[in-house]
Amino acid sequence: MAFDAIETPFGKVDKIVGGSGIYVAYAAANFTTPIQQISIIGYDFPQSELDELVSRGVQLEGVEVVSDKKSFFWSGRYHEDMNSRDTLVTDLNVLADFNPKVPDSYQGAEFLMLGNLSPDIQLSVINQLTVRPKLIVMDTMNFWMDIALDGLKEVLKKVDVLMVNDAEARQLSGEYSLVKAAKKIMEMGPAFLIIKKGEHGALLFHQSHVFFAPALPLEDVFDPTGAGDTFAGGFIGHIAKTKDISFNNMKTAIVVGSAMASFCVEKFGSNRLKEITKADINIRIAEFVQLVNFEIDLI
Amino acid sequence: MAFDAIETPFGKVDKIVGGSGIYVAYAAANFTTPIQQISIIGYDFPQSELDELVSRGVQLEGVEVVSDKKSFFWSGRYHEDMNSRDTLVTDLNVLADFNPKVPDSYQGAEFLMLGNLSPDIQLSVINQLTVRPKLIVMDTMNFWMDIALDGLKEVLKKVDVLMVNDAEARQLSGEYSLVKAAKKIMEMGPAFLIIKKGEHGALLFHQSHVFFAPALPLEDVFDPTGAGDTFAGGFIGHIAKTKDISFNNMKTAIVVGSAMASFCVEKFGSNRLKEITKADINIRIAEFVQLVNFEIDLI
Repeated sequence: MAFDAIETPFGKVDKIVGGSGIYVAYAAANFTTPIQQISIIGYDFPQSELDELVSRGVQLEGVEVVSDKKSFFWSGRYHEDMNSRDTLVTDLNVLADFNPKVPDSYQGAEFLMLGNLSPDIQLSVINQLTVRPKLIVMDTMNFWMDIALDGLKEVLKKVDVLMVNDAEARQLSGEYSLVKAAKKIMEMGPAFLIIKKGEHGALLFHQSHVFFAPALPLEDVFDPTGAGDTFAGGFIGHIAKTKDISFNNMKTAIVVGSAMASFCVEKFGSNRLKEITKADINIRIAEFVQLVNFEIDLI
Repeated sequence: MAFDAIETPFGKVDKIVGGSGIYVAYAAANFTTPIQQISIIGYDFPQSELDELVSRGVQLEGVEVVSDKKSFFWSGRYHEDMNSRDTLVTDLNVLADFNPKVPDSYQGAEFLMLGNLSPDIQLSVINQLTVRPKLIVMDTMNFWMDIALDGLKEVLKKVDVLMVNDAEARQLSGEYSLVKAAKKIMEMGPAFLIIKKGEHGALLFHQSHVFFAPALPLEDVFDPTGAGDTFAGGFIGHIAKTKDISFNNMKTAIVVGSAMASFCVEKFGSNRLKEITKADINIRIAEFVQLVNFEIDLI
């Protein structure tokens, strides 16, 4: 839970609420509650945002508030194609000494979504849980592969689902072919691998099975910030709602995640996620069904 | 119909039969016959290849044989990622003065696939047909946008379906968003637009409708040469077999085209296309169904 300053070809915002946990929570809360949040914020984090989260069923007992430090701050600028960006500022602030504590009231959680953070912090949360969740999903990024690969591999052994993008899958496995990359990564621990390809959709691998979900073709991508986290939130939200961790239900969860991500990019930050209703989500899901639905006979 | 010399990270071949018409014919002949081919070859084109085509139901009356010139020759080398290539040699040979003549026996053809060639040649074929086909499909590429844009736009006014890749759709429309690009291109003439995205699949646009078909995730892409032409052959083959030019049936045709293209890249040139049986095609199509099939309820 943090602040972002974002510049895209369509405009800029100076300081808005962001961070992986924000997007995951707003997306998942459409499908299941309570969401039991673990994060750290500074004195500058707005009470109104916390109230909004609570009103949507997000519990904040696991969110540490540091009274004499600022919240994490990231600033970035997207290039014309929206597929690449430059980081302008990273102020760790409270995140520098984040030592997450899982509240007793969170014990027994059946589904754990580990947002993109240092592998040490992800591992600490897993180890504090007295009962192993039915499903542990992990997001990560190339930054942690560069500076904390050993720790990352430790976490990989303890999770069920890994989410990375295509470049990260290639970096982690040393394989260019995503099919080969998936095999190698699943040998590192996770039984399921989701490879996110941005505007080109997402792949789900499990044993010898593969499933593909497209991204919705959009007229404009206004701001991609948080799209991957929103995807993760929709994914875990659907799984937690249905309590079904089969490959078949994960396919559905990926379509739900893609639908949620397609909203996220329509406005700056999490603004669009806060506007949408269940009716909006149903319309969007129906568009995904139309997008890939076909009938075919054998020849 | 031509010769190619191809170098990929997996190996090289000095001189094998290739060319858009070869791939389209071999792919389409699995679905419908006769295929009435229009092309030009030199004295060096192997009789065995012509016999093979005829045995599969490809008619060659429209293929001009020039007794004192060589066939078109292209040589290229693919980069490590297989998504880009360098052209090493282009010998036009017989293609320099190709003036296609549509045989009387071809008149009345219901479906016309215009392979990637100069817009003048494509237009000449359209204009020679005494009865307008039920469906005219056009392939083209950035090269013709660079040197013959006016001619290309003339052909666009006369075709029903245009096939281009994503970079070409952006170049032709001047729009980065593929949704916006599609709208502009459909205003230029074709009621349907197919945007091929290689390993990222293909999009079909028509009015306000959009359909997406993925490419099959493959362990290795051995040689991408001809994949786009094979896609076109599978597409037009399915349409010609079913004689159904609705948007719904085009969705199916795109899946068929994607399945055929997934075979093409498994070996050099058209080698794999010559091996496969209808049973192989059915297995591959079933894999595509599995790849995108999901069940979802509204929330």
